[in-house]
Amino acid sequence: MGKLKQGFVHVYTGNGKGKSTSAVGQAARAAGHGLKIYILQLMKDFPYGEIKALEHLKENIEVEQVCKDDWVFKKQLPPEEEKAKALKALNTTKDKMLSGKYDIIILDEAIVSIYFKLIDENVVIELIKSKPSEVELIITGRYCPQSIIDLADLVSEMKEIKHYYNKGVLARKGIES
Amino acid sequence: MGKLKQGFVHVYTGNGKGKSTSAVGQAARAAGHGLKIYILQLMKDFPYGEIKALEHLKENIEVEQVCKDDWVFKKQLPPEEEKAKALKALNTTKDKMLSGKYDIIILDEAIVSIYFKLIDENVVIELIKSKPSEVELIITGRYCPQSIIDLADLVSEMKEIKHYYNKGVLARKGIES
Repeated sequence: MGKLKQGFVHVYTGNGKGKSTSAVGQAARAAGHGLKIYILQLMKDFPYGEIKALEHLKENIEVEQVCKDDWVFKKQLPPEEEKAKALKALNTTKDKMLSGKYDIIILDEAIVSIYFKLIDENVVIELIKSKPSEVELIITGRYCPQSIIDLADLVSEMKEIKHYYNKGVLARKGIES
Repeated sequence: MGKLKQGFVHVYTGNGKGKSTSAVGQAARAAGHGLKIYILQLMKDFPYGEIKALEHLKENIEVEQVCKDDWVFKKQLPPEEEKAKALKALNTTKDKMLSGKYDIIILDEAIVSIYFKLIDENVVIELIKSKPSEVELIITGRYCPQSIIDLADLVSEMKEIKHYYNKGVLARKGIES
């Protein structure tokens, strides 16, 4: 920690491919520079490939994965116990962000988690507002509310122009997961 | 090689952050699955952080970096010897793609290299058309011509909504490079 003089808030949003992958790439790059990174990943089984790839960098990259997204497919609201788990994980992440031990904090899929009501927009806003100046905060997920765009220093929207999912192709190991 | 039954052509284009980082993230994830990856990176000093991060994965990821971009900033056309180097590197990449030894081929910044006339659009088109079906080909760079979008299976456009560069911030080690 302490490697960055100035940290920013990044948002990767939009419906296109590249949001989480970009965050993982940022983490891998920063680890190569000896920065310390904490990743909280919501609503996703952590892909085996990513764990394996980041394992070599485990001295620098710490990963926590919380809550699945099966209720989305059932068109249900998130169960209360899942919401409680997500809130606890966000609070832990905030503590880590304030601990002075990490250069980069990544909230992967936090934005879509707001959209699906797993986490509260205001909790994320408070977390952004309490960011120490030397920490970089990267937040990903589609459906970004304007309130978070307003607080971000960098916003990149990944727009899907074409996707082979639309041709009926299923996720492939090593590429999508 | 031989881990993918079906490979696709991905294009990451647009003026926003996340194109190359997404490609590096894809490479790291795929390496975790034991896939073999070859990356040709054009018009970029290969960032130290990325080399260090990918070093742990060097059994799976091979990286070649060719041609700088200093002539762009001088508002010049690329020198002939740089164009020759780039063409040679593309031919080598094509050979590797056809060799049966790699699952994923990444042409990082190839699209912007077409725009700045370092490489010829038709050479890239021929390379795409000769892709074996079980190889995944990922091409990045802003200013993507329609001809390449037409050939791609997946196109994600990274759109810059906001960037702190516009506030006069310079590139920081571990984050941008």
